Amino acid sequence: MLATIMHAAGDVRIETVPDATLVEPTDVLVRVVSACICGSDLWPYNLRPADAPPQSMGHEAIGIVEAIGADVQRLKPGDFVIMPFAHADGSCAFCREGLPTSCVHVGFFGNRGLNGAQAEALRIPFADGTLYPLDPTARNLVGDAGLLASLLTLSDVMGTGHHAARVARVTPGVTAAVIGDGAVGLCGVIAAKRLGAERIILLGRHDDRIALAREFGATDIVRERGEAGIARVRELTGGFGAHAILECVGTGDAMATAIGIARPGGAIGRVGVPHYEAIPLAGPAFYSNITVGGGPAPVRTYIDELLPDILEGRIQPGRVFDQVTDLAGVPQGYRDMNERRAIKVMVRP
Amino acid sequence: MLATIMHAAGDVRIETVPDATLVEPTDVLVRVVSACICGSDLWPYNLRPADAPPQSMGHEAIGIVEAIGADVQRLKPGDFVIMPFAHADGSCAFCREGLPTSCVHVGFFGNRGLNGAQAEALRIPFADGTLYPLDPTARNLVGDAGLLASLLTLSDVMGTGHHAARVARVTPGVTAAVIGDGAVGLCGVIAAKRLGAERIILLGRHDDRIALAREFGATDIVRERGEAGIARVRELTGGFGAHAILECVGTGDAMATAIGIARPGGAIGRVGVPHYEAIPLAGPAFYSNITVGGGPAPVRTYIDELLPDILEGRIQPGRVFDQVTDLAGVPQGYRDMNERRAIKVMVRP
Repeated sequence: MLATIMHAAGDVRIETVPDATLVEPTDVLVRVVSACICGSDLWPYNLRPADAPPQSMGHEAIGIVEAIGADVQRLKPGDFVIMPFAHADGSCAFCREGLPTSCVHVGFFGNRGLNGAQAEALRIPFADGTLYPLDPTARNLVGDAGLLASLLTLSDVMGTGHHAARVARVTPGVTAAVIGDGAVGLCGVIAAKRLGAERIILLGRHDDRIALAREFGATDIVRERGEAGIARVRELTGGFGAHAILECVGTGDAMATAIGIARPGGAIGRVGVPHYEAIPLAGPAFYSNITVGGGPAPVRTYIDELLPDILEGRIQPGRVFDQVTDLAGVPQGYRDMNERRAIKVMVRP
Repeated sequence: MLATIMHAAGDVRIETVPDATLVEPTDVLVRVVSACICGSDLWPYNLRPADAPPQSMGHEAIGIVEAIGADVQRLKPGDFVIMPFAHADGSCAFCREGLPTSCVHVGFFGNRGLNGAQAEALRIPFADGTLYPLDPTARNLVGDAGLLASLLTLSDVMGTGHHAARVARVTPGVTAAVIGDGAVGLCGVIAAKRLGAERIILLGRHDDRIALAREFGATDIVRERGEAGIARVRELTGGFGAHAILECVGTGDAMATAIGIARPGGAIGRVGVPHYEAIPLAGPAFYSNITVGGGPAPVRTYIDELLPDILEGRIQPGRVFDQVTDLAGVPQGYRDMNERRAIKVMVRP
């Protein structure tokens, strides 16, 4: 089958690899209907050392169950499923608490021997716990390309934006600030709006993304960065800062900005994969009683909450996809996202 | 009047200073009934540069209102009051939200020209918002030395331990870990127990404090530090760590331990004044979805919740005081706390 392999920074290839197969009795095999390129894929696309082993890419997908292992109970061939970016057993203490990304059997697609989702098919370990099957009513809707795109976002990007908003404690009436205008940040705007934020300040500088953010509910745009950006957000908020900060970038500078624009007593939900060793400004964050949380989003858990809003059209996170490609076009898709010519690229194998 | 002045590290003196007086119409003058030495006073006691200006010390007190400014509404001479360690106007957005330590008029006793509480008397700005008057029933109880000691803890140490527990999200049934066996850590044990923690692990190494912690509800003691301490807590918690971590020290090592012993999805409440620039282990904390919060405790806000438990004897945080001295004995009290011969020293001017 065809799959996307990253060989080194900037070197992504579509290659023929051994077909995905069932290995464990709890596995299922999923034929990919659509997958996508994640902003987090751009980290290795830029930074991967030349001597790292090749990596199978992609961790977001919706698809059709093609075969099931002997111990699979909740799924059958033909099921239409959402595949969260991490697999989980669905039964350990963490899964029961709603944190499947810390499952004792967690694994991240495209890592440690698991094949990635930018491919024709993939093996899903612990399938009963991992996959979210759509009921037949929902399945009837998948001829709708817009809906299909939004369902795909439940495998990562929309759940991740929602996680940022939840951890940042967005509640009705608050002022939220979203750092980063990538697809996660844009989904963060949707999530903040959905949870009732009265004012949503987007920190970003790309016109196409800003336009979409405004449609999603952003009320204010701050194009400045660093100290100037902090000053501007403070100016917009009576000098106090925002209650809820969604940090959707993952750099030390973005975290410093997050702390700089947080209102005393406020909370930061960080979902950008951190490329910094320590959270800066430990003192200022302390003296303002600012809370910093977040991590890999338990997107599997959030599907129950978000799916009805998608099925009934109240939110349209699928609009973050502004390109669709087949597998052959994936290397170009990486280039386009990396050079900010595309917000997010959908892959239809 | 007599007051405690720190001239340099290790150099604390009792000196005659100008009498505290009313300055603003919103001030009251409080005659100190009892004050105390705080663990945080030991930071300058060890680190204060020789060329820093002299500082008036002490920020915890209970006392009697002696005189009131023309605009004071809620207090009258003779009122018995608890003085939180920070003054606040009681009416700004932050005070209304329950975070008076971020009041737009906040000030910390013993700092920036405000005299300290290890003294015969002190001026209280924004007295209506700052002071917590005890009702006459409570006042009748103050002949009870144990009760008086516990009331004094509401000015800082008990409210601070409670803040750590709240921010660490202690709820019934959780496993809590308290880092530090100083008076704040001990009050953290009380708070964790009070909020329903099923298991309370204290990380400390002083026999007298450990004995008290056990009486307060600590179920397990970990004397090891660093990696060994982390390993021990993990061993005690099935390999997973504790749900709620109360960081009551304020060093980078203590924060690293806090993150190392936090269960995925857990929360850290830090109340030790941070003597580190950045919160370490940004990556591990992220991958485990650990939340870090805390800061100067809004102790004024917490009095409503904690006072009934003190008045009715359900909690006895005043037991952290194991020495009582007059003002003349304060320099020795600093030495005793600094050398861990005393847990916490009460000052009765």
